[in-house]
Formats: sequence, structure tokens, C-alpha cells
Amino acid sequence: MRLADRMTIAGVGLIGGSLAAAARAAGLVGEVLGFGRTAANLEVARDRGLIDRIVTDDATAAGADLIVLAAPVTTCATLAARFAPHAAPGAVVTDVGSVKGTVVDALEASWRDPARVVGAHPIAGSEESGAAKARADLFRDRLCVLTPTARTGPEALRLVRALWEGVGARVEEMSAATHDAILARVSHVPHVLAYALVRAVADRRADGRRLLDYAGTGFRDATRIAASPAEVWRDIALANRAAIEEALGEVRIALDDLARLIAAEDGAGLEQALDAARRTRRSMDGKP
Amino acid sequence: MRLADRMTIAGVGLIGGSLAAAARAAGLVGEVLGFGRTAANLEVARDRGLIDRIVTDDATAAGADLIVLAAPVTTCATLAARFAPHAAPGAVVTDVGSVKGTVVDALEASWRDPARVVGAHPIAGSEESGAAKARADLFRDRLCVLTPTARTGPEALRLVRALWEGVGARVEEMSAATHDAILARVSHVPHVLAYALVRAVADRRADGRRLLDYAGTGFRDATRIAASPAEVWRDIALANRAAIEEALGEVRIALDDLARLIAAEDGAGLEQALDAARRTRRSMDGKP
Repeated sequence: MRLADRMTIAGVGLIGGSLAAAARAAGLVGEVLGFGRTAANLEVARDRGLIDRIVTDDATAAGADLIVLAAPVTTCATLAARFAPHAAPGAVVTDVGSVKGTVVDALEASWRDPARVVGAHPIAGSEESGAAKARADLFRDRLCVLTPTARTGPEALRLVRALWEGVGARVEEMSAATHDAILARVSHVPHVLAYALVRAVADRRADGRRLLDYAGTGFRDATRIAASPAEVWRDIALANRAAIEEALGEVRIALDDLARLIAAEDGAGLEQALDAARRTRRSMDGKP
Repeated sequence: MRLADRMTIAGVGLIGGSLAAAARAAGLVGEVLGFGRTAANLEVARDRGLIDRIVTDDATAAGADLIVLAAPVTTCATLAARFAPHAAPGAVVTDVGSVKGTVVDALEASWRDPARVVGAHPIAGSEESGAAKARADLFRDRLCVLTPTARTGPEALRLVRALWEGVGARVEEMSAATHDAILARVSHVPHVLAYALVRAVADRRADGRRLLDYAGTGFRDATRIAASPAEVWRDIALANRAAIEEALGEVRIALDDLARLIAAEDGAGLEQALDAARRTRRSMDGKP
């Protein structure tokens, strides 16, 4: 099913590149244009067949039925403002960012027709980045959240829904505020914690020994997301600041609670608290 | 090379069971006795060929050249005290626990000959547990830390070193205090954080939606270790309380620092801090 004759991907990284590859493979789009700031990455994307051609100016990039902004979230707002004067009246703009409230507001403010703006967030990232890591099956059976507003038009919403369903994702709609509250807790704060954990240990030594040399798989798993691109997470942290601060407060409470049990040497209370968390975590893997 | 005619494993879980299997496979021990409190788990160990036979009384369990305590750390001290009256004068006792200071102190205090006590910690755990998960290659190319004290005899130390080297581990010696300071930071506190993160999110909803249903691979990786057995981690937290409290303070400082940059909307400072952590984390995987 052809959804767009031409799709522009602005930011052909892991997410943008994977969407390009998947949409092409599924025959959802005619031509795919790749726009970005790093020539070498765009060439990788073209050589891997993720995009048909590289475009380097705003006007050409904006000349598509469907424009997907897959850059760090702050850059998306900038790109929408730059593309808007060149875009056709019916062009739909969407994004893939992990923050929706402030970002969708900005897109609606700059796009000619706010009805043609649809916020989207495929929950399928990893700490990897770049077109070299993109793959057409990245979104299969993964969730993609759409955050339509009162201004979003049904036609544009249908198009973006069809795009994500067409690449294999389950699509769910919710408000941007709900999305941002959820993602602050299940993604943004865990990233902040992982970065903090690595910072607390980095360069530290005990009796001359470098602590990181003694990290096992537990530390590696717990901090894998701290290998994520700093610019992406800087933008997310700032764009979802209020929700992240609230969520950080909740984690501090949970941490203080465990610390209090440890300080009090309350073995029974501590075991109960840890076991409740263990059962919750195991339930995520379908285990009892 | 035969190191012991008979080895008792007290606690035939992931670590104890894997050590039994590996030592047998390498021909390091004659007979392996399995001791524990859960009959079903011991039967799994016997049926899988990890141990030769199940022993249920302290006197029989203590009748070995080499006794490996692989129970939760607090239980190890109890077991050593129970086995001590029955053990032969030359019997060597060792453990596998993630805390060494308080544990080795307790073993030395209860064992007839403190020279025959050797603290050991193979850094090779996972959130899995039980004899069913044991495997003979668990320690291959992994680090095992030995923490001899002024009382440790060279013969017992050589025996325990040969055991771990014989199952494929790299062996390093350090003081128990150094070990505990390091492990608090690269393992114990990350576990406490992971448990806290799960507790902060568990049962929480936003607009009626269960937050955990929106967790992606990042959250799963970051909290995998919160699926670890509660009893094991209760014991570790209490046995290494002082070092954990100090290390938690360091993580709080790193977290406060990031939170301050976010609150101040200091994009440049935040990106710099995140990128430094990212480079540190990537260096652990040999990446630039």
C-alpha cells in the first residue's frame, strides 16, 4: 500500500534509517530522501540502500508528501521551522522523538497547517546509533505511541498510523502529557541513573586498582544505556525536564527507603522490599 | 591435576553448581558432595551430574578435604560454625560470596585452623539462580578474587587458587577491604539502584496505563539484576553495609550533579557530562 510518493527522513540514524529501510521494504513509499548534517553517515545510508538519495538543502528536503524528523528532539523543532516555508500545503510532518509535549507544540507552531502534524514515538531504540546500525525489522512487534492533539487532522493521523503499522509496529494513541509522564519513568530517568552510575565509578580507584576493571555483567547491563548518544539524551532531558524531575524524586524515595532498611539492618524488611521488586521485574519476562 | 579427593559444595546454586560441574569436568576433585536446604534443587544437581551425592547432615558434609560455602553470605558463617566441629584438621574451607571482610572474619573465627580459611569471589554471577542454571563454563576467562589475610596459610591459598585457575578463571589477590570497596561500587550499589528503580515504577499508572507496559529494552537491561534472589542481596547489603552506604553517597552526588544541570537547563554542561559517561561506558566494550 503506497502511503507517500516521496518521504524525507531528516536524521538517518538508527531510528530514521530503520524506518526508511522498513518503509521501502514494505512498499509504503516511493522515493526516500535522506537529509542530515553528517555526509559520511548519509553515504552509509545510501550505500546500504536505506535511502534513494541524499539531499542537502532545506527546500529539496521539504519537497515530500511525508517528512519524518528523526533528529535529536530540539533539532526537530528547528528543522520543522526551516522546512515549513518550502513544504507543500498538504505535506505531513511527523517525528520519532522520546519527548512529545514540547516537541509537538513546537512543530504545530511552525508548520503551515497544524492539522498535518503528528507526534510519534516508536519505543525501539538502543544505545546504538547511526545508519550503519539501522535495520528494517527494528519496529516489528514493538510499540509506537502517537500523540494526536485537538489540532491533529484525521487524515494525517491515519497516514502516520498506517506508516508505523506498515513497518510492523503496534500503534497506541495517548496524550503527549501521558506519554511524557510514562517515558520519564521507564526510559528517561533510567538513562539519567545509568549515566550517573558510570560517572560515579569512572576513574575511581581502590588501593590503586581501577574499579571498572572489576565490573561484571550486572554493571554492564545496568549501564548499557549510558553508551547512548549524549546529544540525544541532553535534548530529551531538557525537553522533558518537569516530568523527569518528578520521576527522579520518586526514584530517590525508593532509594532512600532501601537505604533506610540497610542502615537499620532490617533484614526482614529489606528482603521483603527486594523480593517485591524481584517479582515485578521477573513478571516483565513472564516469569513467576 | 587432583586437588582434593572429596569436595563439599554447601549451596548448589548457580555458582556452587557451576563450580562443582567445572571442577569435576577438569578432574580437579574426586567425589563431590552436595549439601543444601532445598531437596528439589539438590536432586536437580545430582540428576544433572553436578554432584556425586546429596548429603544431609553436617558431619558428613564436613567430611571433605575442601569445603566450598556457596550459600548467601550470612548463611556461610553459620555453616562454617556448624561444620567446624566435624571437619578434619587439614580441611580447607572457602566461599564464593560477594562480600569478603565480615565473612572471612567469621569463617576464621569459627574454623579450627584459620590458616585453612581462604576467602574467594568469582565475579561471574547473574540474576539467575539454582542448580538448573549451573554450567561448567561459567568461570572461563572470568575473574576470581582471593582475599587472603595475615592468618591464611600458603598451602590453603595455593589449593584455592589452583581450584579457580583449574576451572578457567583468572585469579587476583587483594585485601578483603579493597575487594569490598570495589564490589560495593561496581555491583552492590548497582543492584540497590536497580531494585529501587523497579520499586519506583511498579504498580504505578499514568492516565490508567500501567507504566511497565511501556518499558523498552533500556529499562529491561538497566533492571535485569533486580531479578536477582532477594535473600542473597539482603545478605550482601547487610554484610557490606558501610562500603555500600559510602558508595551510595557517591552515586547520589553524581545524580545530584546531573539533576542540577537539567534543572539549570545547562545544555552544554549536561552534554559534556553525559558524553564523558558515554565514553567511559563505551571503553568497557573496547569502543572509542
